[in-house]
Amino acid sequence: MTLIDGKAVATAIKQEIAQEVEQILRAGGKRPHLAAILVGHDGGSETYVHNKVLSCEQCGFTSTLIRYEDDVTEAELLAQVDKLNNDPDVDGFIVQLPLPKHISEQKIIEAIDYRKDVDGFHPINVGRMAIGLPCYISATPNGILQLFKYYNIETSGKHCVVLGRSNIVGKPMAQLMMQKRYPGDATVTVCHSHTTNIKEECLKADIIIAALGQPHFVTADMVKEGAVIIDVGTTRVPDATRKSGFRLCGDVDFDNVAPKCSFITPVPGGVGPMTICSLMKNTLSAGKKEFYK
Amino acid sequence: MTLIDGKAVATAIKQEIAQEVEQILRAGGKRPHLAAILVGHDGGSETYVHNKVLSCEQCGFTSTLIRYEDDVTEAELLAQVDKLNNDPDVDGFIVQLPLPKHISEQKIIEAIDYRKDVDGFHPINVGRMAIGLPCYISATPNGILQLFKYYNIETSGKHCVVLGRSNIVGKPMAQLMMQKRYPGDATVTVCHSHTTNIKEECLKADIIIAALGQPHFVTADMVKEGAVIIDVGTTRVPDATRKSGFRLCGDVDFDNVAPKCSFITPVPGGVGPMTICSLMKNTLSAGKKEFYK
Repeated sequence: MTLIDGKAVATAIKQEIAQEVEQILRAGGKRPHLAAILVGHDGGSETYVHNKVLSCEQCGFTSTLIRYEDDVTEAELLAQVDKLNNDPDVDGFIVQLPLPKHISEQKIIEAIDYRKDVDGFHPINVGRMAIGLPCYISATPNGILQLFKYYNIETSGKHCVVLGRSNIVGKPMAQLMMQKRYPGDATVTVCHSHTTNIKEECLKADIIIAALGQPHFVTADMVKEGAVIIDVGTTRVPDATRKSGFRLCGDVDFDNVAPKCSFITPVPGGVGPMTICSLMKNTLSAGKKEFYK
Repeated sequence: MTLIDGKAVATAIKQEIAQEVEQILRAGGKRPHLAAILVGHDGGSETYVHNKVLSCEQCGFTSTLIRYEDDVTEAELLAQVDKLNNDPDVDGFIVQLPLPKHISEQKIIEAIDYRKDVDGFHPINVGRMAIGLPCYISATPNGILQLFKYYNIETSGKHCVVLGRSNIVGKPMAQLMMQKRYPGDATVTVCHSHTTNIKEECLKADIIIAALGQPHFVTADMVKEGAVIIDVGTTRVPDATRKSGFRLCGDVDFDNVAPKCSFITPVPGGVGPMTICSLMKNTLSAGKKEFYK
């Protein structure tokens, strides 16, 4: 069993990015610039955005953090999005989700210039990804593809079961795994709350990508000997022994599942670090105008 | 076994559309207008476009057919697309595919104003469909959804196997069948040329949607008793007994598979007529500015 070390892969990729940024600067190019809009003080969002700022430093990017309180209006936020769309120094930007309920997340996402949409949530990027065209691919699915590549995990002809059908993980993951390329060319099954026989489906899987947000949903009796397990779950479970008062819990019962696997990601330290790393890759692509002029 | 009569369903839906058009006109509204660009003289394309013009008449739409010879340049075609984008009388238009090899189909598709993209091929419509937002859904997948509705075929929790991963049928079909709604909520498996055990996958399917373009690929030994079979295949097979010199052949070995099914579509007369019917529905939506202002 190989433990997939997302932290190490992310560090290696960020180092490669930093080297490329140095080359760009030496050639007289512009330093990539990522901006983030953060609304309110949600604990998870604060952590993510903090890590994004740190990663920008590691990659040699300029980063800008724009904060609003929970009572920001949709109009104010749209005005800020417009400002970033038109700021020639900002290569890419994200609006950290979730947003307060009085603001339409979809409206904000669609207001972002797709050429700066490094989260890959704009319908144009979602559509181009589905068709197989170059575009910003959303961070978590792209991070998982990078892990497959880094560990040379075969995907062609493999049966990949995706648990969950969210717009940001399950659906794009399924689309990516069925594309005509590596990683891809897998037979893909998507399971969700309406699936009647998830255990059977999982038992046939060569690769399971679990993104349900249900702690320890995938148990050892659901996993075939030698399977590859990618755990996207990061549910916060109360834990009095931790300073923070919680620990992150994956969708996979790691201790019992791991011995059966060929490859498995831990939580934390598996998919999580790759997510931010993908955002950095997208920002570098934005800076280089790799996908769009 | 129920034979799904796509021709009858399409006729019924076109009658409903015609009635709605009459109401729109009576209320002082504008007659929906579909334009089609046809390049060259490909037999299949000629037939499709001819049928589209006929269907427009049946629905009470205005239709415009713009023809070019095979030697049309990409620039000329782009100029025509631009003209239709800016023609306020044209509600929606299509560019009949395939195009000659010297023209980039993707470039033409992306040049179409997504608000007039009644084929649903523009990345914005593909992306919105994946996310589950209102949009033009491409004609064949949407036609299949209409058949499920018309025959009250249960899809929730069913195992749906999609054979083929094309951008216009397989991929969108998979996306639609996993959405949180009816028809949808199915467990979806997508199989393709790299799938190693298609027979086993099919044998577990409650619903098979075959879109491989391989005549009689799905045989009786691959089908579970009581399955629903949707045959998207329309390969032209030489047939000296026909005036045209060919007949349309589906992906399913109909004669042997049909007795095992609960529902099955014939070829021709199944999915085919629904495809044009979906285009008519999209044109009506375009005329009503249902999805976009």
